[in-house]
Amino acid sequence: MSASTDYTKLAIEQIMSAWKTQTKAVDDMLSKFSTEQFHSEIAPGKNTGIYLLGHLIAVNDNILTFLGFERSYAHYDDMFVKNPDKSGFTFPPLEELKIAWYKVNEALTKHFSSLSTEEWFTKHTAVSQADFEVNPQRNKLNIVINRTNHQSYHVGQMALLN
Amino acid sequence: MSASTDYTKLAIEQIMSAWKTQTKAVDDMLSKFSTEQFHSEIAPGKNTGIYLLGHLIAVNDNILTFLGFERSYAHYDDMFVKNPDKSGFTFPPLEELKIAWYKVNEALTKHFSSLSTEEWFTKHTAVSQADFEVNPQRNKLNIVINRTNHQSYHVGQMALLN
Repeated sequence: MSASTDYTKLAIEQIMSAWKTQTKAVDDMLSKFSTEQFHSEIAPGKNTGIYLLGHLIAVNDNILTFLGFERSYAHYDDMFVKNPDKSGFTFPPLEELKIAWYKVNEALTKHFSSLSTEEWFTKHTAVSQADFEVNPQRNKLNIVINRTNHQSYHVGQMALLN
Repeated sequence: MSASTDYTKLAIEQIMSAWKTQTKAVDDMLSKFSTEQFHSEIAPGKNTGIYLLGHLIAVNDNILTFLGFERSYAHYDDMFVKNPDKSGFTFPPLEELKIAWYKVNEALTKHFSSLSTEEWFTKHTAVSQADFEVNPQRNKLNIVINRTNHQSYHVGQMALLN
């Protein structure tokens, strides 16, 4: 490792690896937990597993918007992001959510790999040019760093379904 | 942002920012939750808050070893890392753990800021030179990326003490 450009590429790759690790953690729970487990609460009175799964699908799908691509599951936002669990929505069946989970991750993988090193450091779509100039951390790469930690947070909770 | 060296520095700064965000999340819980809350389980039959706090202190303190510095709380490993909760250990009082939490974070902040860009990409102490050459991701920066996600995972669980 000699050139600094390589370091930048390596740092991005490491951030992508951490993302993949968290995605795999959810994949593993999808294989491991029963439908009944997904419909139970992580702790008494707290969120259900199915709500958290829907929440991760919607939030991850919205990463595409932040990166300047089109998302597919904006219709999940009301149910899984804008309103808390147990707000009276009829959730899609677990099988539908599983398909959505894999489709969103497929789209993210495709679009992540389409971005050049320089593009990762351009502003994400929800920040103004002026605010970005004040804080260059508000770039596309930061969305992935933050959403990886967001996913870890909920993976820790979903692990309690076991 | 023009030179690639700046991108590398920026990527490291973003990873450090994510670390600080997770550290602040624990700080906030230390201010917010009562001693009784810390001694309760995150869910029936699962870990207690105080165990998870001790676990984060020990794991974070051990980051220093991976980066080649001296750690201070190796004596917490038996209680909080090598053995599960409810193994018969008498935990230190919450006040002692709070002090340990802040001391570990102070040491991490100091040592993180002492590393140069190049040093972040050198191998961590638990990987052999041969293995590192095969996978250059096994560097010091990766320890922070992974431990940030580890912290998010448990922060998600500790949030249930509320």
